[in-house]
Amino acid sequence: MGENTVNRVYNFSAGPCTLPLEVLEETQTELVDYHGLGMSLLEMSHRGPIFDSIYEETRSLALSLWDAPDDFDVLFLQGGASAQFPMVPMNLLHEDTRGAYINTGHWVKIALNDAQYSGDIYQAWSGEYEAFTRTPESSEIKLKDRTRYVHLCSNETIGGLRFPVFPDLEVPIVADMSSEMLARAIPWEKFDIVFGGAQKNLGPAGVTLVYIRKSILGSLNKAIPRTFSYAIEQANQSMANTPPVFSIWMVNKVLHWLERNGGVREMENRAYIRSKLLYDCIDNSDGFYRCPIQNAYRSQMNVIYSLPTPELEKDFLEQATQYKLVHLRGHRIVGGIRASIYNAMPIEGVETLVSFMQDFRRENG
Amino acid sequence: MGENTVNRVYNFSAGPCTLPLEVLEETQTELVDYHGLGMSLLEMSHRGPIFDSIYEETRSLALSLWDAPDDFDVLFLQGGASAQFPMVPMNLLHEDTRGAYINTGHWVKIALNDAQYSGDIYQAWSGEYEAFTRTPESSEIKLKDRTRYVHLCSNETIGGLRFPVFPDLEVPIVADMSSEMLARAIPWEKFDIVFGGAQKNLGPAGVTLVYIRKSILGSLNKAIPRTFSYAIEQANQSMANTPPVFSIWMVNKVLHWLERNGGVREMENRAYIRSKLLYDCIDNSDGFYRCPIQNAYRSQMNVIYSLPTPELEKDFLEQATQYKLVHLRGHRIVGGIRASIYNAMPIEGVETLVSFMQDFRRENG
Repeated sequence: MGENTVNRVYNFSAGPCTLPLEVLEETQTELVDYHGLGMSLLEMSHRGPIFDSIYEETRSLALSLWDAPDDFDVLFLQGGASAQFPMVPMNLLHEDTRGAYINTGHWVKIALNDAQYSGDIYQAWSGEYEAFTRTPESSEIKLKDRTRYVHLCSNETIGGLRFPVFPDLEVPIVADMSSEMLARAIPWEKFDIVFGGAQKNLGPAGVTLVYIRKSILGSLNKAIPRTFSYAIEQANQSMANTPPVFSIWMVNKVLHWLERNGGVREMENRAYIRSKLLYDCIDNSDGFYRCPIQNAYRSQMNVIYSLPTPELEKDFLEQATQYKLVHLRGHRIVGGIRASIYNAMPIEGVETLVSFMQDFRRENG
Repeated sequence: MGENTVNRVYNFSAGPCTLPLEVLEETQTELVDYHGLGMSLLEMSHRGPIFDSIYEETRSLALSLWDAPDDFDVLFLQGGASAQFPMVPMNLLHEDTRGAYINTGHWVKIALNDAQYSGDIYQAWSGEYEAFTRTPESSEIKLKDRTRYVHLCSNETIGGLRFPVFPDLEVPIVADMSSEMLARAIPWEKFDIVFGGAQKNLGPAGVTLVYIRKSILGSLNKAIPRTFSYAIEQANQSMANTPPVFSIWMVNKVLHWLERNGGVREMENRAYIRSKLLYDCIDNSDGFYRCPIQNAYRSQMNVIYSLPTPELEKDFLEQATQYKLVHLRGHRIVGGIRASIYNAMPIEGVETLVSFMQDFRRENG
């Protein structure tokens, strides 16, 4: 398999994004004929014993590796975090309750927009007038009565900011953690639901993990379509209809990789090291590189920064490819540079980027 | 790659199901390092030029190979046909219109149940009192005024029956063709929407193709979440959020295979040959094998039949594996035997099954 690695690049894509090479190689080996059974896993019924045991193992690993308490289950659904935006109010809200949203930028704005058709929702804090450069203190979040849940986005992938600490609130949190799934330890007692797409820290696109507190299942709204119902999906092991078999299979392999590599604590440690290398380089550049986010709130997954001019940014992106550093262009909404450094990004990738940033500044600063 | 084929079985699973071996082998070869770019396709941004060209080619092939008229586009969504059941009324119905459903069995019952929360719907015909052994004539379908669409399931995967001809109606048809996607030519002028999961005729699980008449997009309901909106997905090339990259990539490869193998007309021809081999064997068995469906309405994708006793069915399933014939067990709801014979099932697979059926009858009849 050595040939596969010869030209391997450092891929800073925001998602889909870099995966552990050994996971890709293992998938490749098993793809055509699964364990000598004469067919691919992709060709098997999802109701058979082989996929069933893969599913159960994946579910169990996803719970245990993230230290989820016994009262949590995890569902493997489709449609990305985007499908969860309407599904959360659809399931959790009744006529006499409402949902609060902490607006920290792009993804909460989208969630607010998508949730409005499924229940009474409102904004409990907004960072808009500070250009979304920080997350709020608990005391700044203004909750109305009859609030069933507070939606927040733990890390804004486009804005490049995160909640350093989850707020203390009187109602349960529903967290969109798309870019921090199994990348940081979390205080489970504060949450009713934690969800996110796999395509950043956990695998390829096509599956969304929804951690849900089992004791709330009985009180969820029942007058909704089967395929959008957490209670029905949980009762059917996420197989009320055909699940995304391949994506779940690869998440299984990534979770095993994560376990071999020290689990969530070690992922958290590596995320700190990777992001510190980059922020130190930015902060020690005499203003050549600039990150707009206040220090305490800077993302450890998506490091965003700008250069003095758009021309320099263009040169930077072009020259980076010579160091095998790719997909560093900022999101089209905000421009600039974005280095997404999820669980599978090797620290050497970040060291190579820092070294290139120093060289580039020396030549152009 | 020859080694892969040594133990290959004939897999009659109802979906996910058998895929063309050459498609699996091509995917395997390209999986770790896509065309020498130093990363897997699974690791690339869906907004980049590589995936963009794969997406555009897949879209174009999916339209042209099925002879879809210029007024049609095709979307690649998530959630299976099950997600379409609520999405159809959500998008198509306004306060003053309603949807009609032709109840031919299991999948239309599910669709009726899921659609009820998104608009005014009703049953325009039901085969329930004839035990779902046929589809209706056009004249039997009773439409109320203000009916916007008529939902039908072209082929009931569990029941084993199909519409031999699509009905002539005054309103457009919305067809769930999950088990007949690109497996038969269709009269496009009768349809506004044709949808189905990929995991039977087109690829692995995880992506749903939704063919939609472009001229209806402007009149669809706009007060719905972004991720459930056909108009928004169509305007964003199915990338209002992250698409299921791997599944779309494999559908691309299956469509190329389909093109190399003579297109939809040849798939239709092979389906006729495969199903005729099986129904002839059943009908010439002096009642040893029995298919409950009236001849004209028998499915060409899912051949269902029973044996004289449950004990014989058990023996049949066990002995079949010795001929490398697997996944022949009927759906848990109806029992018996089900041979699902989609596009990628080789005719030799069916010949082997027929030969085994004759042997088994000789020994046990």
